[in-house]
Amino acid sequence: MRVVLSEDHRAQFPDGELFDGTLVRPFECPERWDHVVAALDAAGLDDRTAPDLVDLDRVQRVHNPAYVEFLADFWEEWTASGRTGDAIASMFPLRGLRQDRIPTDLKGRLGYFALAAETAITAGTWRAASVSAAIAQTTQRLVAGGEPVAFGLCRPPGHHASTDQFGGYCFLNNAAIAADGFLADGAERVAVLDVDFHHGNGTQSIFWERSDVLFASLHGHPENAFPYFLGYADEVGTGPGEGFTHNYPMRPGTAFDEWCAALDNACGQIADHRPDALVVSLGVDAFENDPISFFSLTSDDFTKVGRRIGALEIPTAYVMEGGYAVAEIGTNTVNVLTGHNC
Amino acid sequence: MRVVLSEDHRAQFPDGELFDGTLVRPFECPERWDHVVAALDAAGLDDRTAPDLVDLDRVQRVHNPAYVEFLADFWEEWTASGRTGDAIASMFPLRGLRQDRIPTDLKGRLGYFALAAETAITAGTWRAASVSAAIAQTTQRLVAGGEPVAFGLCRPPGHHASTDQFGGYCFLNNAAIAADGFLADGAERVAVLDVDFHHGNGTQSIFWERSDVLFASLHGHPENAFPYFLGYADEVGTGPGEGFTHNYPMRPGTAFDEWCAALDNACGQIADHRPDALVVSLGVDAFENDPISFFSLTSDDFTKVGRRIGALEIPTAYVMEGGYAVAEIGTNTVNVLTGHNC
Repeated sequence: MRVVLSEDHRAQFPDGELFDGTLVRPFECPERWDHVVAALDAAGLDDRTAPDLVDLDRVQRVHNPAYVEFLADFWEEWTASGRTGDAIASMFPLRGLRQDRIPTDLKGRLGYFALAAETAITAGTWRAASVSAAIAQTTQRLVAGGEPVAFGLCRPPGHHASTDQFGGYCFLNNAAIAADGFLADGAERVAVLDVDFHHGNGTQSIFWERSDVLFASLHGHPENAFPYFLGYADEVGTGPGEGFTHNYPMRPGTAFDEWCAALDNACGQIADHRPDALVVSLGVDAFENDPISFFSLTSDDFTKVGRRIGALEIPTAYVMEGGYAVAEIGTNTVNVLTGHNC
Repeated sequence: MRVVLSEDHRAQFPDGELFDGTLVRPFECPERWDHVVAALDAAGLDDRTAPDLVDLDRVQRVHNPAYVEFLADFWEEWTASGRTGDAIASMFPLRGLRQDRIPTDLKGRLGYFALAAETAITAGTWRAASVSAAIAQTTQRLVAGGEPVAFGLCRPPGHHASTDQFGGYCFLNNAAIAADGFLADGAERVAVLDVDFHHGNGTQSIFWERSDVLFASLHGHPENAFPYFLGYADEVGTGPGEGFTHNYPMRPGTAFDEWCAALDNACGQIADHRPDALVVSLGVDAFENDPISFFSLTSDDFTKVGRRIGALEIPTAYVMEGGYAVAEIGTNTVNVLTGHNC
């Protein structure tokens, strides 16, 4: 299995994450990547590829160009204003407020493009996020070019990023960029399967009105889990996209049997869609010991997850999303990948 | 002039305020109150009154009962969950996300009812916020009962709080509660004049569709200043409220001449409305040395502000809002009050 990765991910590591009223060391930290690489090494998955340069034209098929420009330029403007700390949004265009005008003030612009306040923009954010998107693009091209399966070790993750909002540790939606890349390369239908513990709100919203990209997500129920405000079962898409979004929200303590029944249902929907390619948003935070999640999958369960996805026999691009049980993230990720090829 | 105040304000003082990527000592701090009291003492404004108990039925004429319940109960739930830090919202129901369902999870509920991330809920928040609302109510009753003018030294402030959102240091909208109180006591028409540097987005939204309460606000232009997403000049109210909202956004560096021309226009609108009572959202952060604002009024200018408001000869309830040049907040506030009676 080809693996696409880059050391450039290290550029994204803010000083703090807003968590329960204080700033803590970010859960989404560089060691996550190190543990995955170590587990890939141990499993002999050593066919490594560096990403090509990011294709911004394709990124802008998914993201608003004004948002991409914001991400690329904001840190320079922020520091030029004399600020020295990371950029964390604190005021947002919420209900009752205007969403039709972008402030010129830096804090106002930051809030306009933000989804949440736990995620900071720092010196290396654009470098890391754009290379992470490039990893998704290269992974997609490998699969479009004939590889049956490939893994993009994206960091930062992407599935919470909408067309013009960053948050939940995400800036560019790597999975959406990969899915759209397949379409740009000639695919007629694509599916995105999101097995990350958290709902892929960004991916859902990007493809909400489209019938060419089916989106299926297994996740903590939004009444109980981040991102809280999307991911209910009654969200099925709209217009031509109606019926092409499938959500499987599950409650605290959900174990593999129930989770796997949802996976089987999602895989059935995907098979019925007859996609030319599959993108998997591969978060492994459904793991029982994840510090910020509440499902109880074991490491062995992840092998079964990969096996089921592999059984679909669809050309598949895996892109890394979440997983915060740092010591086990490598094992759990590699178990999915090795399961895929069983 | 009767002054309504309480030491209970001290209960609201979170450990930190999210500001430029770090947690800093809150700008909205208890010493603000001490400096105002000292200046009241120095000016001989010593006719002090403690507030009556808060009238929650009247509070709930302005605020959603579910929101009031949230404010009253949240800290107990938050600490019962084992958390020890202040409650700061980090995920919000932003564009593209659902606003029709309130999560059960504590962080989700916190975000649902939040407007911003700089403002924390802490142990004493409900006590301080409810007493601050009681101060506004008592001040309003004094004026409804015949006092030509009275001053409620509210802390925390209120004008950013909407019917169901806290933020910008505000929890209950003291000015809106006072304005609505006049109506409940028989007034046919009321006006709210907001001279705080920041737009009174909460007050505007509460009276947006109503013709009985005219709202006029002088403030930093939302392209340049918090709250960023409301306060443009083209916001004039809607339905029966159309024409009863007047916004005067002004640019960085605005000095008294320009600011006062806006005040005169606002006073003309208020006079034309022929209100039975006037509520003034009295922030003094238009001051030239305010650390988080950008107008350049001098301390002497505030005397002229009071004089112009007093010249309207409308029964007037002043309620304290912002002002973060702590050493001068007392002088500037008292200058408005003494100017009123010149």
